[in-house]
Amino acid sequence: MTQPEMTFAGSPLDRADALRSDAQALAALQAQGGRLLALQGLEPVVDGGLVWQSLDAAPEGAELIFLGLDAEGQGHFVAAPRPEDASTAPASFDLWSALSGLSHQEVAIYGAARALAGWHGRHRFCARCGSPTRIAKGGWQRDCISEACATPHFPRTDPVVIMTVEHEGRLLLGRQPRFPAGRYSALAGFIEPGETFEEAVAREIREEAGVTVRDVRYVASQPWPFPSSLMIAGHAYADDPALNIDTNELEDARWFTREQVAEAMEARARGEDGVAFSAPSPRAIAWHLLDRWLRAA
Amino acid sequence: MTQPEMTFAGSPLDRADALRSDAQALAALQAQGGRLLALQGLEPVVDGGLVWQSLDAAPEGAELIFLGLDAEGQGHFVAAPRPEDASTAPASFDLWSALSGLSHQEVAIYGAARALAGWHGRHRFCARCGSPTRIAKGGWQRDCISEACATPHFPRTDPVVIMTVEHEGRLLLGRQPRFPAGRYSALAGFIEPGETFEEAVAREIREEAGVTVRDVRYVASQPWPFPSSLMIAGHAYADDPALNIDTNELEDARWFTREQVAEAMEARARGEDGVAFSAPSPRAIAWHLLDRWLRAA
Repeated sequence: MTQPEMTFAGSPLDRADALRSDAQALAALQAQGGRLLALQGLEPVVDGGLVWQSLDAAPEGAELIFLGLDAEGQGHFVAAPRPEDASTAPASFDLWSALSGLSHQEVAIYGAARALAGWHGRHRFCARCGSPTRIAKGGWQRDCISEACATPHFPRTDPVVIMTVEHEGRLLLGRQPRFPAGRYSALAGFIEPGETFEEAVAREIREEAGVTVRDVRYVASQPWPFPSSLMIAGHAYADDPALNIDTNELEDARWFTREQVAEAMEARARGEDGVAFSAPSPRAIAWHLLDRWLRAA
Repeated sequence: MTQPEMTFAGSPLDRADALRSDAQALAALQAQGGRLLALQGLEPVVDGGLVWQSLDAAPEGAELIFLGLDAEGQGHFVAAPRPEDASTAPASFDLWSALSGLSHQEVAIYGAARALAGWHGRHRFCARCGSPTRIAKGGWQRDCISEACATPHFPRTDPVVIMTVEHEGRLLLGRQPRFPAGRYSALAGFIEPGETFEEAVAREIREEAGVTVRDVRYVASQPWPFPSSLMIAGHAYADDPALNIDTNELEDARWFTREQVAEAMEARARGEDGVAFSAPSPRAIAWHLLDRWLRAA
């Protein structure tokens, strides 16, 4: 099986950040055939690919977010949604079905647009003073309209640790209640204020599985726009495999042998569930963690 | 010189996240001699160490944020500040002077408290609907008080890339206008929605220095509570050293030889500026990037 690329990475657009502060340049890009990403709420409209419209298709008064330039220098935009359309729900089956009709690069463009548009829809007001906010810097900022406050706000990106743990050739995986039947995957949790990546990995595994780890190392990262995560994946080692599962977080956690993981990943490549467990989707960075662990053997 | 530990990492407090949702347990911790971190605004009160007070010292009606448990199981708290006290300013000379009187572990406790307390002070209102918010889950959440909205909000942690770039044994460092005279350090910038760590590193170096990089690798991470960053440090390689500096971001950027970097780091260990440049403070992850590059030779 060819190694899949990291889903939501690899956007071909040039973010052209210098243009964000240049209102004239942005207006010129909009006048010169700027393209508007068609969304329904935050879901993509797919018709053999992403659908791009003329900027005239934006609702009257819509705030236009500058996504970047394509290779021809054409500006790509998305409209800030209404608050009720800025869902923070996880990706649905229907969304994954829609994305399966897109190229890798289109999925990346859509992911960035979804994260950014959703943030605008959920940040119409100033968290500091409660006044309305308005779009600034081509959508990479919102400013409080109160002159006394005038606080600038920036899009959120929430770092999440996700990690596999190894003990004597076996891998620790867990399942959350919301997972499909039989699915086991890498443990995960948000990085909190005041901790490093490595500390967050160790804390989450201790909290969720009662396991102490050492030698945490970084593996890879992935943007995950549900609603605005950055998945930072790691691998760690445990000397003691005894589990003490936090059943508020996990339905179960188990150590799987290399053979079990390999079989489940082979089954996944055929679109099937494995014997010992159902492996994560290749869209998720958890898949890459399992894949790299098998390859490193 | 002994290698300094990572500043703001290594807190000895157990975050005891299961207690955050347990109002009874939190109330019991508060009643049983809970300790309150003394702050002036967001600055630490230092008297031979951090100053901890009785919870009675908190202003009437103050929201108490649960920082964690010490080894004796005693609860540690900090009060949410007034909005006007929740500064987002960078660390001042006076702050670093105060922190120099603290142990490594105290600095970590303070850093987490500052990031969290500042977030509360700046998030008194719901970004979605503009209504007031109130503390929830021991300070690890704020909830919109509007029944129709009721949006939960979570503390921000903003991932930042910071990186050194190598070309034929020389290292690319830059200076921002706000740096002390002579200081050069690693380039840095926020990770944006829709990109991986590696993509953000490559984009920032291209934007700020006009340099194309390959083989980005992760080195280390550091919480940086000014106001709420997670510094994620990397190292990359460039095949072409030609610079095209964005003077909106950087005052200058240069390639330094290994000898120049080594001399500047030795001078820094003596509290002095180097000949070719002034090396970053050991408190900053940039220092660790330079140190590890020298050691890896």
